[in-house]
Amino acid sequence: MSYSIGLDYGTNSVRCLIVDTASGEEVATAVSPYQTGEAGIILQSSDHNVARQNPADYIQGMEACVREALKNARDQRRNFSTDQVIGIGVDATSSTPLPVDKEGVPLSTHKEFQGNLNALAWLWKDHTSYTEATEITDLARKEKPQYLAKCGGTYSPEWYFSKILHCLRTDRKVFEAAWTWIELSDYVPAVLTGNTHPGQFKCNRCAAGHKGLFSESWGGFPAREFLTKLDPKLGTLRYRLADKTYTIDTSAGGLTKEWAQKLGLPAGIPVAVGAIDAHMGAVGAGVGSGKLVQIIGTSACDISVWPSSQPLRDIPGVCGIVDGSVLPGYFGIEAGQAAVGDIYNWFVNYLQPGGAKNGSHEELTRKASQLKPGQSGLLALDWNNGNRNILADQRLTGLLLGQTLHTRPEEIYRVLIEATAFGMLAIIQQMEKYGVQVAEIINCGGIAEKNAMLMQIYADIVGRKMLVSRSAQTCALGSAIAGAVVAGKAAGGYDNFEEAQKSMCGIKERTFTPLPENQKVYQRLYSLYQLLHDAFGRKDGSAHLAGVMKELLAIKDQVNATA
Amino acid sequence: MSYSIGLDYGTNSVRCLIVDTASGEEVATAVSPYQTGEAGIILQSSDHNVARQNPADYIQGMEACVREALKNARDQRRNFSTDQVIGIGVDATSSTPLPVDKEGVPLSTHKEFQGNLNALAWLWKDHTSYTEATEITDLARKEKPQYLAKCGGTYSPEWYFSKILHCLRTDRKVFEAAWTWIELSDYVPAVLTGNTHPGQFKCNRCAAGHKGLFSESWGGFPAREFLTKLDPKLGTLRYRLADKTYTIDTSAGGLTKEWAQKLGLPAGIPVAVGAIDAHMGAVGAGVGSGKLVQIIGTSACDISVWPSSQPLRDIPGVCGIVDGSVLPGYFGIEAGQAAVGDIYNWFVNYLQPGGAKNGSHEELTRKASQLKPGQSGLLALDWNNGNRNILADQRLTGLLLGQTLHTRPEEIYRVLIEATAFGMLAIIQQMEKYGVQVAEIINCGGIAEKNAMLMQIYADIVGRKMLVSRSAQTCALGSAIAGAVVAGKAAGGYDNFEEAQKSMCGIKERTFTPLPENQKVYQRLYSLYQLLHDAFGRKDGSAHLAGVMKELLAIKDQVNATA
Repeated sequence: MSYSIGLDYGTNSVRCLIVDTASGEEVATAVSPYQTGEAGIILQSSDHNVARQNPADYIQGMEACVREALKNARDQRRNFSTDQVIGIGVDATSSTPLPVDKEGVPLSTHKEFQGNLNALAWLWKDHTSYTEATEITDLARKEKPQYLAKCGGTYSPEWYFSKILHCLRTDRKVFEAAWTWIELSDYVPAVLTGNTHPGQFKCNRCAAGHKGLFSESWGGFPAREFLTKLDPKLGTLRYRLADKTYTIDTSAGGLTKEWAQKLGLPAGIPVAVGAIDAHMGAVGAGVGSGKLVQIIGTSACDISVWPSSQPLRDIPGVCGIVDGSVLPGYFGIEAGQAAVGDIYNWFVNYLQPGGAKNGSHEELTRKASQLKPGQSGLLALDWNNGNRNILADQRLTGLLLGQTLHTRPEEIYRVLIEATAFGMLAIIQQMEKYGVQVAEIINCGGIAEKNAMLMQIYADIVGRKMLVSRSAQTCALGSAIAGAVVAGKAAGGYDNFEEAQKSMCGIKERTFTPLPENQKVYQRLYSLYQLLHDAFGRKDGSAHLAGVMKELLAIKDQVNATA
Repeated sequence: MSYSIGLDYGTNSVRCLIVDTASGEEVATAVSPYQTGEAGIILQSSDHNVARQNPADYIQGMEACVREALKNARDQRRNFSTDQVIGIGVDATSSTPLPVDKEGVPLSTHKEFQGNLNALAWLWKDHTSYTEATEITDLARKEKPQYLAKCGGTYSPEWYFSKILHCLRTDRKVFEAAWTWIELSDYVPAVLTGNTHPGQFKCNRCAAGHKGLFSESWGGFPAREFLTKLDPKLGTLRYRLADKTYTIDTSAGGLTKEWAQKLGLPAGIPVAVGAIDAHMGAVGAGVGSGKLVQIIGTSACDISVWPSSQPLRDIPGVCGIVDGSVLPGYFGIEAGQAAVGDIYNWFVNYLQPGGAKNGSHEELTRKASQLKPGQSGLLALDWNNGNRNILADQRLTGLLLGQTLHTRPEEIYRVLIEATAFGMLAIIQQMEKYGVQVAEIINCGGIAEKNAMLMQIYADIVGRKMLVSRSAQTCALGSAIAGAVVAGKAAGGYDNFEEAQKSMCGIKERTFTPLPENQKVYQRLYSLYQLLHDAFGRKDGSAHLAGVMKELLAIKDQVNATA
């Protein structure tokens, strides 16, 4: 018997999962919510864009949930012994960088920066850096178009350099005190293996490639000259960034004695190089050639892979293509939607009249499932949080069309779900247009597990079989798989991911197959969706309409500036 | 002392208003809700388009409210005497025609038609006849374009011949049993004066002109050949329609002894020829050259006048231009919006989460009034019930654009109000483009009286001073004014409307003047509204988008047909 541990750093909490490496059975788990802020996020009422986290929460939460999960494992399996744990894997939200000093210690622990939000971790969903993102995009478009070709054509405000540049522009003190900025998915393995010193820790390929413009093809992180043009101070940071990045089949080091003792685990067991949560989730869900994994949560992430040995064109508008970011030996292809569950939540929390009972997700789903496709005469765009792919435009907004005096909440609820499915289809069509086939889709996340109506709508709209991952914690499972692989076959793990996934991943029995009569209606509706999508979303689409959403935001900004 | 009575037949009830002819003071009033159906409307759950009324309710309700109003008048003024009532005026919703037999008795009273919805009155908002409306429009476009030029370019499903033709197509028995179809605004004066016999009653210019394609310029109602092409049976009806129509300064006859006794009024007092409620409301609000009256209710009606002696071009997209339909000696110009208050009600009743307390009109208005123009980043089209003017297209639907995950109910509530104001501005700009100046706007209806935020938004968007009528019952007041005019000066009334309005109409003290800083923002927003308006509403606008709403409705219809 051998076990592997997966540590999954989500938006609000950290989870520890203990997995039987032979069967993939999830023996025990535990979750620690982050302690600081609202549900672990430090907000600022004056600026909706701010979202920070306290680095201390990451370490504290990890210790608590590992100890609790081990206790649960002992309760579950009488013969479970911590000696049987052979490896650890780690995944985290991204880009969630934290400024650290020369010793790799977070600036937030420095007395002088206490209470300073900029010294904390900048959570992925922090949007303060939208101006800087545009600046980086504009410069790259002019001078380094290859940078953008691999990240969907636009550099995001959610990403590494946007955030660092915004800090440099708005809080020079924090920027100058920071020796470097480390992604959360690197920080945790570094802490566990005692390799926190910058230059010592192993920088992960996944976050660096997808969020930090890292590619071996242009010599690693962006050229110093490029960063210097954004700001000379940013240029000097370049020397202090890693030269090399690593895939998740690499060990970041052995668990330190100190941490082994704290957690009650064997010292020296390997800790895998980290990765972004969604990418590790794809591994845990069973991603592979022709199998796309969709993780549906507040937003959605679509991950597929393509053999590194075969040619792959750039895919315009798709978030990221990074060699080795998901599985070693494959290009990782990442796309996604900026809001999915968040749109349904917005509707339920702010815009329906039934209250907790009649207006719950369950009740609206019950009523909406009695409707047929097209029956409401409604159509929506899924841009309430901008469009991540394939338009890659943060400053797009939502649209609802077709309402009459008889339009009911459940009708709107249903078309919001349809809108997110149309958004997903737009992404998949773009991937296929550029040669990446998607034969079936494995879904994970609570929404996919709980809402059969939604899964059927997705099958009907996307026109592909929808599977649901057996595991409810694919991210943590993917990390545990990485832990098993870095441990190796000799130690009771695996020598490669193919074998590990075959044994440790699974699919739920209930699957969703497209219904031809629904597909026919949805194809007509999708034509209309595409019309609106292009008219409002593409600069070259409908010359006049493309500007409408942005002009509204410009008016809003001006009014607020003088309010 | 002399008094005049105004009878106002609304959508859900009939009102009696007793007015002091010298001052316009409203001495007493009473309202009788119609007894049959839901709030007086007979609906059909299987077809949203059906809206009928029971003709018996009209007579029963009238008797009850007149008697009650007279009682209230005696309570109010000790020296009030029914002998001092010198005339009666009548207005009603339109087109609300009812099929009657050779004696002018409603078919609904015939035993064989009991329970048959088609034998009832077809309420203005009945939309069953949309196919027939298109047919009439298409034929007129080909053969009699002059018919359409005076009614906004499209014949509506809400109007007289659409309804009759639909009955002929779907219920031949009722059609054949009907000697003719009489508008409610003609039916009531006919009953009160004992002139119910077809050929005997005086057909009013207002309903005939605005809803029945009546014009002296082409010889009255549409030519027999035209009606015959729609259906030979409709052609034969032509002989049984009136040759002549009358304006509201004409007496329809004297109150019969029988009715005088029933109501407790002097026999023989004149009853004015009827008119459409909104048109009479314009009279009661003080309509005149350069003064447009807007009646804001569930829908909105804009009425202005233009001297008959001066040339007036056709105004494309504006509902109706009929000589003498409002004031004798003036062209009456009618336009309107298919839903105004109905859109706000839809939002409050179906789509906001606060419940009766936090989500009431009052509470949403309180919150919305704290917002500045443009601050929400939202924009809406006011087409939840189609567009009556200036696109004249029933099959347009609503649109909301700009929502994010932070969008709150009060923000949407405010932009729905802004959308209806933009819709009104589009109408006024069209009128002015064709030479009808609008210097100030007199508003009436409960919403105008109660909601100061809404009135200010209208002033800011429309860019004109907004006045509010002193009377809360301008329709009934207008009818009472007509009653005073048909009575004449010698009897204590007036010899013309100018004098009568001068004495009997008034404006509230609080007026609303456009605020330049708001106007500036709203001008930018209106440009965007126009973009959406033309792109989705005009066939020649944005070729692709103009079809979106209709294609959605086509899909909806097909799905429902096979459901």
